[in-house]
Amino acid sequence: MNNNPNITRRSLLGGAMAATVMQTALANGLQVGLPDDPTKQMGTPPGKLGSRSRFETLAKAPSDISSRSPLQDFKGMITPSDLHFERHHNGVPTIDPATYSLTIHGLVDRPTVFTLADLKRFPSVSRIAFLECSGNFRTGKETMTPQDICGLTSQSEWSGVRLSTLFREVGVREKASWFLAEGGDAALMTRSIPVRKGWDDAIVAYAQNGEAIRPEQGYPVRLFLPGWEGNTSVKWLRRIELGDAPWHTREETSKYTETIKDGRIRQFSFDIDARSIITFPTYPAQIERGWVEVRGLAWSGRGKVSRVEVSTDAGKHWQVAELQAPVLDKAHTVFRHLWRWEGSETLITSRVVDETGYVQPTLKQLLDARGPDTGGYHMNPVTAWLIKPDGRVLYQPDYGR
Amino acid sequence: MNNNPNITRRSLLGGAMAATVMQTALANGLQVGLPDDPTKQMGTPPGKLGSRSRFETLAKAPSDISSRSPLQDFKGMITPSDLHFERHHNGVPTIDPATYSLTIHGLVDRPTVFTLADLKRFPSVSRIAFLECSGNFRTGKETMTPQDICGLTSQSEWSGVRLSTLFREVGVREKASWFLAEGGDAALMTRSIPVRKGWDDAIVAYAQNGEAIRPEQGYPVRLFLPGWEGNTSVKWLRRIELGDAPWHTREETSKYTETIKDGRIRQFSFDIDARSIITFPTYPAQIERGWVEVRGLAWSGRGKVSRVEVSTDAGKHWQVAELQAPVLDKAHTVFRHLWRWEGSETLITSRVVDETGYVQPTLKQLLDARGPDTGGYHMNPVTAWLIKPDGRVLYQPDYGR
Repeated sequence: MNNNPNITRRSLLGGAMAATVMQTALANGLQVGLPDDPTKQMGTPPGKLGSRSRFETLAKAPSDISSRSPLQDFKGMITPSDLHFERHHNGVPTIDPATYSLTIHGLVDRPTVFTLADLKRFPSVSRIAFLECSGNFRTGKETMTPQDICGLTSQSEWSGVRLSTLFREVGVREKASWFLAEGGDAALMTRSIPVRKGWDDAIVAYAQNGEAIRPEQGYPVRLFLPGWEGNTSVKWLRRIELGDAPWHTREETSKYTETIKDGRIRQFSFDIDARSIITFPTYPAQIERGWVEVRGLAWSGRGKVSRVEVSTDAGKHWQVAELQAPVLDKAHTVFRHLWRWEGSETLITSRVVDETGYVQPTLKQLLDARGPDTGGYHMNPVTAWLIKPDGRVLYQPDYGR
Repeated sequence: MNNNPNITRRSLLGGAMAATVMQTALANGLQVGLPDDPTKQMGTPPGKLGSRSRFETLAKAPSDISSRSPLQDFKGMITPSDLHFERHHNGVPTIDPATYSLTIHGLVDRPTVFTLADLKRFPSVSRIAFLECSGNFRTGKETMTPQDICGLTSQSEWSGVRLSTLFREVGVREKASWFLAEGGDAALMTRSIPVRKGWDDAIVAYAQNGEAIRPEQGYPVRLFLPGWEGNTSVKWLRRIELGDAPWHTREETSKYTETIKDGRIRQFSFDIDARSIITFPTYPAQIERGWVEVRGLAWSGRGKVSRVEVSTDAGKHWQVAELQAPVLDKAHTVFRHLWRWEGSETLITSRVVDETGYVQPTLKQLLDARGPDTGGYHMNPVTAWLIKPDGRVLYQPDYGR
């Protein structure tokens, strides 16, 4: 910041600023097409589609099976659709919406095949909600970012038809207690879902952030189960079968289960437990002394976030963070805490309490409950960041162990 | 919809469906890369950035000076950032964020030049709100879409620093009653704004829908004045000067003013008046008999939408539409009304009432108040659509005149 009592309009319009722009451009190798003074050159005309600035390099981090959202780069609660995390089990299929159909059958009075146009004709609903993969925890190195640690969570405004509307249309029978959701990808992803979730808040979604769902997110139609582990929100949804027992598919037996005490396995653990993570300051940021806005995201699959607490002294004291309104049900909620950093080495951390009273656990509490071989699902520990005296920020993998 | 009591899992897995997919693909000329059965071919691996489906063709409608959002194609309340309407006066400038600065001077104690990093260090805020150009009304032909009629309105989640925070930082003096906002584009867009808006809810915004503002929307920094005519939310913001009177710039004298009765001109008409428009069914849709979900958007620059009423009999009777929660302050709000259409020709229309009690006017009321040569600004008439007996939908330009 440059405080200068002699700033006038005239001094600003001189050549000094333009010269600086050009020098920086040359230094960055960006001189091609970068005007020395944008006010002296007509800009780009209006277009059919906008695009990112050439100076922005936001990207997901892909592996063979998933692609993680850059949580540390986001402002606010909406995830841009092309930066929504990906997790698929045999790639993203290409599905023609003109031939797409959803079949609902089994314990129903009127087995029905719905086209996309059929689905869009029913009364619709929209809601802003997070979607998180239940395998959303990586740890181990100080040089991990929020994207590395838990980048498999994103938030969109989802629109579609309530599954309860379709249940009424096909006449789901009273003895139906579960349904199978099957995807049309090359993994033929299948999950068993209690029918009460279908009557409650499940959506057969065809839109995301205002437009058609992106292919990676299930184009043209996905199931969306607010607050439940992401894998159950079956993408490229092509079939729903009503039954009176779970199917025990591969993805709910050998996968997507957790060990608990005494070597037993927990199955059908659908709810995403409340979690928070600081997204700034985090590795690789370097902060300066003085006021720092500690920011992050908090969410719960069981309802609204009630409170986020932030500690800037390694958990000795906790202060209540500000929550950005509106605080929505089963939604990423931005928290902020203004902190004056004087230059001492310290740990900063956050924990969330949701409206059911659930408190985000420490890593030790999770390991005590699950045993050492957790399988990696439903891990939502309190996460801490070390602030070095020079302002560098490092992840603390062993915090709370 | 195909109701078939004999659907079983086995019958679905046969070849009939795959054959149909391939035939349609060939008919559409889309056979290249379109698998005959997506479940039998591994899909695309995870990537750094997602993209739209090849089957989706959403686009804005550009002219020389603006680009209109396809309101009729949107679901929900968020506008995808690359489909946010554009309106600029000399093209989109390319601005290097590394050399960008915002100068605040004039009637302040500490004239200051802020870099982008400076602005991002202050406490931040996010809000979902609409932005509408005050010249957002076109009419005249039955074959106009919502995009044609009022596509210069869009909605994003905007993030940045409150202007009031910067006002405190520079020490805005008590006698400062107006400020000038100047853009860094080749139009050097300038507008005079009452200082009270800066103390109230103005944002110096650097993010839109989670990421950096798009170039067309003011990258790297724009002013955002919730609920006020879009032109005052100066893009590519580079200078704010505090003063004790308006500057009477070109864009608030020869433009962005309205005639009112007796030939007088209304200046500084900042608030966007409440408006609603049905976005489905609208031209060029064709509906079928039976249940039709009438959908649309409603908004007010003065606060929340209180009520939207829909008439399906040319204004003889009105019914209260359902509003999609959450209903936010100064935000596009989705309304829906389930209507059973029996096949008779009729007119459908909507009107909004906001929390100040303001009722959306008819075209006649607007023309009576403004005179025949309105100048085109701040026109928000009730809009109607003709449903033909064959289900075709046509805009009715003379409704309510």
